[in-house]
Amino acid sequence: MDFSSDTAAPAHPAVIEAIAAANHGNQASYGGDETTVRLRGLLAETFETDDFDFWICASGTASNALALSILCSSAGAIACHEEAHIERDERGAPEFFTGGAKLRLLPGHGGQIDETALREALSANNPEFVHETPLEALSLTNLTECGTAYAPAKVEHFASLAKAEGLNTHLDGARLANALVATGASPAEMSWKAGIDILTLGLTKTGAIGCEIILLFGSKRAEFPQLQARAKRSGHMPPKIRFLAAQAEAMLTDNLWMTLATKANQTSRELADMLCAKPGVTLAYPVDGNEVFCMLPTEIEALITRAGVKCYPWPGGSYRFVCSWTTPASDLDAMRDLLAKA
Amino acid sequence: MDFSSDTAAPAHPAVIEAIAAANHGNQASYGGDETTVRLRGLLAETFETDDFDFWICASGTASNALALSILCSSAGAIACHEEAHIERDERGAPEFFTGGAKLRLLPGHGGQIDETALREALSANNPEFVHETPLEALSLTNLTECGTAYAPAKVEHFASLAKAEGLNTHLDGARLANALVATGASPAEMSWKAGIDILTLGLTKTGAIGCEIILLFGSKRAEFPQLQARAKRSGHMPPKIRFLAAQAEAMLTDNLWMTLATKANQTSRELADMLCAKPGVTLAYPVDGNEVFCMLPTEIEALITRAGVKCYPWPGGSYRFVCSWTTPASDLDAMRDLLAKA
Amino acid sequence: MDFSSDTAAPAHPAVIEAIAAANHGNQASYGGDETTVRLRGLLAETFETDDFDFWICASGTASNALALSILCSSAGAIACHEEAHIERDERGAPEFFTGGAKLRLLPGHGGQIDETALREALSANNPEFVHETPLEALSLTNLTECGTAYAPAKVEHFASLAKAEGLNTHLDGARLANALVATGASPAEMSWKAGIDILTLGLTKTGAIGCEIILLFGSKRAEFPQLQARAKRSGHMPPKIRFLAAQAEAMLTDNLWMTLATKANQTSRELADMLCAKPGVTLAYPVDGNEVFCMLPTEIEALITRAGVKCYPWPGGSYRFVCSWTTPASDLDAMRDLLAKA
Amino acid sequence: MDFSSDTAAPAHPAVIEAIAAANHGNQASYGGDETTVRLRGLLAETFETDDFDFWICASGTASNALALSILCSSAGAIACHEEAHIERDERGAPEFFTGGAKLRLLPGHGGQIDETALREALSANNPEFVHETPLEALSLTNLTECGTAYAPAKVEHFASLAKAEGLNTHLDGARLANALVATGASPAEMSWKAGIDILTLGLTKTGAIGCEIILLFGSKRAEFPQLQARAKRSGHMPPKIRFLAAQAEAMLTDNLWMTLATKANQTSRELADMLCAKPGVTLAYPVDGNEVFCMLPTEIEALITRAGVKCYPWPGGSYRFVCSWTTPASDLDAMRDLLAKA
Repeated sequence: MDFSSDTAAPAHPAVIEAIAAANHGNQASYGGDETTVRLRGLLAETFETDDFDFWICASGTASNALALSILCSSAGAIACHEEAHIERDERGAPEFFTGGAKLRLLPGHGGQIDETALREALSANNPEFVHETPLEALSLTNLTECGTAYAPAKVEHFASLAKAEGLNTHLDGARLANALVATGASPAEMSWKAGIDILTLGLTKTGAIGCEIILLFGSKRAEFPQLQARAKRSGHMPPKIRFLAAQAEAMLTDNLWMTLATKANQTSRELADMLCAKPGVTLAYPVDGNEVFCMLPTEIEALITRAGVKCYPWPGGSYRFVCSWTTPASDLDAMRDLLAKA
Repeated sequence: MDFSSDTAAPAHPAVIEAIAAANHGNQASYGGDETTVRLRGLLAETFETDDFDFWICASGTASNALALSILCSSAGAIACHEEAHIERDERGAPEFFTGGAKLRLLPGHGGQIDETALREALSANNPEFVHETPLEALSLTNLTECGTAYAPAKVEHFASLAKAEGLNTHLDGARLANALVATGASPAEMSWKAGIDILTLGLTKTGAIGCEIILLFGSKRAEFPQLQARAKRSGHMPPKIRFLAAQAEAMLTDNLWMTLATKANQTSRELADMLCAKPGVTLAYPVDGNEVFCMLPTEIEALITRAGVKCYPWPGGSYRFVCSWTTPASDLDAMRDLLAKA
Repeated sequence: MDFSSDTAAPAHPAVIEAIAAANHGNQASYGGDETTVRLRGLLAETFETDDFDFWICASGTASNALALSILCSSAGAIACHEEAHIERDERGAPEFFTGGAKLRLLPGHGGQIDETALREALSANNPEFVHETPLEALSLTNLTECGTAYAPAKVEHFASLAKAEGLNTHLDGARLANALVATGASPAEMSWKAGIDILTLGLTKTGAIGCEIILLFGSKRAEFPQLQARAKRSGHMPPKIRFLAAQAEAMLTDNLWMTLATKANQTSRELADMLCAKPGVTLAYPVDGNEVFCMLPTEIEALITRAGVKCYPWPGGSYRFVCSWTTPASDLDAMRDLLAKA
Repeated sequence: MDFSSDTAAPAHPAVIEAIAAANHGNQASYGGDETTVRLRGLLAETFETDDFDFWICASGTASNALALSILCSSAGAIACHEEAHIERDERGAPEFFTGGAKLRLLPGHGGQIDETALREALSANNPEFVHETPLEALSLTNLTECGTAYAPAKVEHFASLAKAEGLNTHLDGARLANALVATGASPAEMSWKAGIDILTLGLTKTGAIGCEIILLFGSKRAEFPQLQARAKRSGHMPPKIRFLAAQAEAMLTDNLWMTLATKANQTSRELADMLCAKPGVTLAYPVDGNEVFCMLPTEIEALITRAGVKCYPWPGGSYRFVCSWTTPASDLDAMRDLLAKA
């Protein structure tokens, strides 16, 4: 019973096949290969626009940090949720890539920024007062770190508030597919149509080996050369980039990414229902995607610990259970049997 | 006829197979997986020691920069050849990862640092004079950027000169296998036995997709946690690291990396002989590994340009031709036919 | 009526005289001059120890940031109060000088860190978990940003909690003299005897032109060369440093700094009493030093605004009034007359 | 006999008087004071333009680094002479302030960049090739580190070559007054009229305590807020900035700076003549300003060493003698007497 993380999962077989298929003959390095060229078309289709530039990166941390380094100067600040991945789990990557920008932490239930807190931070912002670090960007995460999904209207609303104060907007979409499945929004509706300047589209947790796509929309395309320079100097411009492109292509073709996210979300739903059926178990946050956070009574806590169920105790006292595209039915069955003993 | 770079080549089939084989079931993220654990044993065997720590990284640029950031403070300098990859081809990665250290450029024929220049730089070094940036590390490259190989005795000699002045030592081994084949040295003889503190062992150019190993030897193992922290915050700690380990395992098993480098070196030798057989063609540097640098008479220059032969004009007026593990015999034959027309 | 800041005040005449006195003949640059040499003795006397190294700096922001860059690595975090000067008023200087470290913000009334919050942050610290940024330093401020003084026992207690978890300790003493006067502690009791590793001793706000002293105590003296290197490369190693030393000498001689701080504290006390005598005026924080924070009823708010009294509205709704060594009695009289109209 | 450096000299009495004069009453911090406001008018007059913004800084190193951080991105490079102060004597300040840019070192006799080398570097520049670090700025120094002066036409010519390739231009004028005296150029002719974007105008070596002015001309004024933010976060925004402005005002009033530089240049000329009158003594570089570099025969070398004459052995085998505005006639007389013994 492994509910530790969707990053513990293997890749979907189609990803491996795509890598094998890309492995023929010499190909131009650094993005001139045929797979990367094809990927652009697939992304245009997926996002219903041609007004974008993109970069593929094996790392979600780097993708976020590269995006933020384009959107915020070294003397600026980025507003984000206090539990955001960029704050909690990236070991200072945004600070490193921006050259020392700050993260301004905002509270909010379920990993979603509280609107009042956002409005207060924005209205207090005064870029002309040189002594304080001004907000230059807003970074949202969807699916959030608490497994909840922002509706696209909420993303659009927050982005418009931020833009009204001159901020740039970033969406950390490490689990974007899960959020799209949860909300029914299209990729376009959740990104450029909602006012997002740069999207970090994660495919690793969805089912790739290691593949994230940084998409710059509209006017931010002007920063693409700067993004490339920063990717190069941070070691995120692999010569044989075709093998990253192949992963992305496999995931986006025939909407495989959405299919896999649908499966992961459903499994989580099932797991949540199973847990909540036990007296004393309550959800810490709504289960919108592929993560279940719940408060466990002591007895159940002891039970799953003894059984070696892999899951994480979370700040605030809950436990996090994550399902992936490949969480086997047998894990759910075993969990059901285990809970029956409580 | 593609002699543009060994990074344009595909991966060896064994690498793809290893990736496919690693793709089963959930595995601990970040290095706790079975493949990464196995790799340690293989590295110990390859380097004839247990006194090392290692990190796997998809990028050669990042591997070098991470290594250097451990060996040189932000207020220090790194001595290297003026044509070194870390100076010419990494877009300031060492400066970025170290937080602003300098590279001190030393001259020398064929990509090898001139001993007199090195001695002068070392004897002028005065870490106690706060106004000048002191040398804190020496970085050598083997195979050099000019395709020549340092003998292990030369590496050892330079390392001992550097260490006598308190410097740390780094070896950029992006094409280490080619240098080992050229010199007959063992991996141990070319690294820790020669006084190298940190080796960047490249497998990408040798035949992997993207796989480099940073090895910290002896007393530098104390810096391993710092290396990990820097890898994490620069986006070089992929959760599904088993797929990097799988590449490394495939390459090191049964000495595949040496077999592939032997093939690449031989093909280059053959190409060099073919070129030098033409009147007016001369080698710019000895062909020790898998790269041929030669001066071409105008007629031949025109011939290969018209034929679309892929190769690079190099600073200094020569042309660079690179052979990989998979350069087909047909490319050599085509080249022979082409040259026959001159 | 100018209560805007103690930095708006001129320097004490003794400081100007000292500068004039230092202005004779050629002197060795960068600290080899006779004034700087003499200063060491004066500091040893003031701090009752010889076990220290020091650097003089014209800037409080730089002094703090330099100190922190010695105490926290680029991949670490510094715990401080959420209203600390290093967070609010230095435009990211700590992030810049450390190369991207984080500030971990802790709450607490009156600018003093809440002990429970500190204990929680410390107990959650896990430097071996590479994915999270570990706390490496604790920075306290005394006088705090809210004008309150930590008792030396509190500083010692917090420092010992921090050190028990392996953290280094920093004291921002931009208004140290005011805190010493308030608590009756000696400089030694408030710094190295309380477990402070590096003290930033401010003299600018107390009465100098621009003069802060960074003191490294005990084992942290080993980092002095690194501090100097960082001072040099950040432009905080002036050749004619004798003019900074002269300011420090003037301030420390015959305890002038304490005399000036006593005067400033007394004036603030007087101002606070005057304000609090009005119905509806309440202190936001205890007035321990030379700053008064109080909540004003609307009528008085309007009165002082119309009269052009210089003071600052503060986050939380209070107003900040600062007295300096030279706030004239006439300003207090004018304030008394003004308040009489309410 | 102290010819060690013009930074070993005291300040001109007018500078001390100006500081004393500025020391009255409260004044707005951070540049709102009356002295700083007056200074703008004086600078406009001195530079014959109103199309500039300026920042005052106590440090020459910081002034250069701040200027360069505006003119070159973290992923770019700055062309400068291989003996430039920014390369040799600032401990990596440009790398620190830019966030890791490179210095591209160009050769040339007498501290002046060789035109052919400059043209080659410029023509090789390819900002669109992401793998190499492109030149983004040219930094000239006048007076050069070898004591020679660029003619204003040469500055203009080099600036125009640089601008034709899209580079920004910086002039390090730590000894600008000496260069102006040497060439007869006006401040305007040597800066904005010659195509300089940002000038670092040094007054410290000319006779101030510590006072440099960063001037942004024309279109670069748009970067002034960024410059201020960087000054703030590097600790170069002192609250009591009036004391820096006072120094600048004293130096620029009635052309005191030019008078002092004239004196220093003349003294150096006299010293040079005296030295060259001795058989075997030859100038290493022309004596254009206040520095004499000469090759000394062994006998004279021994003589001045025994006599404790303060001067510096210089890379290349010469000795550097520096005269300041206050080098006493008695030092010249003593030198004459000493040389008479040879």
